Amino acid sequence: MNSVMELLQNHTSVRKFKEQPVADQLLQEIVQASQYASTSNHIQAYTMIRVKDQDKKNTLATLSGNQPYVAECPIFLVFCADLNRLGKACSINHETIESSSTEIFIMATVDVALVAQNIMIAAESAGLGGVYIGGIRNNPQAVCDLLQIPQHVYPVFGMCLGYPEKINATKPRLPLSLILKEDTYSTVGDEEHLKEYDDLISNYYKERTNNKRSNTWTEGIAAFLKEKQRPHMKAFLNDKGFEMK
Amino acid sequence: MNSVMELLQNHTSVRKFKEQPVADQLLQEIVQASQYASTSNHIQAYTMIRVKDQDKKNTLATLSGNQPYVAECPIFLVFCADLNRLGKACSINHETIESSSTEIFIMATVDVALVAQNIMIAAESAGLGGVYIGGIRNNPQAVCDLLQIPQHVYPVFGMCLGYPEKINATKPRLPLSLILKEDTYSTVGDEEHLKEYDDLISNYYKERTNNKRSNTWTEGIAAFLKEKQRPHMKAFLNDKGFEMK
Repeated sequence: MNSVMELLQNHTSVRKFKEQPVADQLLQEIVQASQYASTSNHIQAYTMIRVKDQDKKNTLATLSGNQPYVAECPIFLVFCADLNRLGKACSINHETIESSSTEIFIMATVDVALVAQNIMIAAESAGLGGVYIGGIRNNPQAVCDLLQIPQHVYPVFGMCLGYPEKINATKPRLPLSLILKEDTYSTVGDEEHLKEYDDLISNYYKERTNNKRSNTWTEGIAAFLKEKQRPHMKAFLNDKGFEMK
Repeated sequence: MNSVMELLQNHTSVRKFKEQPVADQLLQEIVQASQYASTSNHIQAYTMIRVKDQDKKNTLATLSGNQPYVAECPIFLVFCADLNRLGKACSINHETIESSSTEIFIMATVDVALVAQNIMIAAESAGLGGVYIGGIRNNPQAVCDLLQIPQHVYPVFGMCLGYPEKINATKPRLPLSLILKEDTYSTVGDEEHLKEYDDLISNYYKERTNNKRSNTWTEGIAAFLKEKQRPHMKAFLNDKGFEMK
């Protein structure tokens, strides 16, 4: 395993940062290198908003479900899927964009995620750490109002970056046999491997919490997914011009 | 700029591969390191299907819009957003999953993209190259039939990997000022930067094609997006159990 794979394998979410600022020059290098991520038909359907204003960061920390590190981190980025720029590109050429389609929603969302993951890796390669903030979708319209995000642009997630104060141990991932299949989607053997993974996760929590927490993976998933998550997303996206037709 | 950032910045899509096979052990290392990508609430909502069977690869090459490298590449992976495993995790614990929500569709799609981008980077760090195949969404139901992909799982994209026969020059990306904003989504100055980028891309094509192609970026975007892309996606996803409610 080479040093890049080791970097990937050592990823953990960082939520406590040193006060040490991150140089603007470094952030620019990180973003510019990361832009070379693949992009569907070169559409580059993303815009990142770096939130520097402390009042706005405080508001975003609250809007994201009271996550204080959103306010505390040296760099907070809001990653947007952006069809607005593509609309301009079309209108310059006297065409209109079909921004209401499910397919273009997928294209833009995937584009954002690919560039964001590059940014996370580039940041970690430079000694930074970070965490994705899905909570930016808790109150997406309020985020749009705060950052003046226009129609046909939606905030997919945020990201905190900074020099880590504390790095956690990595959390065990699903066994390879469950997530990498050959030639067909076969579930033969899955049940057994899921049980093994449940034990692994339960032990991981016990060790980390001095036996205060011991739930399995499937228990955690069931507790999380029995509730409909962020039920406002469809209406929000429709209002924003992503009609998913 | 460090070596990891250089690796990211040198990314180009590779579509011509040497016959040299990729060791199974290397692929496993790549995937296992890549699994440490962030995942929403640890749901790990993805399954990769490695297609080894040559007949299936040939069929997928056709289904993806006649992309011969899908059949020719040493490793072809189909990346699926997977709520099926999460459904099992819930049923083991006597709960049911709300798989019809827009939010969980976003979570799973982003999860897939993050792990896929790690795989691309890990592969490149080991001397491989590759290309994403969005064309897997050209005929997604036929892909599901071929690979026995069940309900609540959908193929997001494919990926070819192998040792590069030929590496192209990188394609210029949008200027930083267009994609990285501060505190608000402001479009001040965008028009001018878009024009500069249009010139850059036009010159890039001229140089690469001996003046046979000279379109700007906005022209390319307009020509691509004036048509509704993959209009079947909504009906396909609905049938597959992703109802986007």
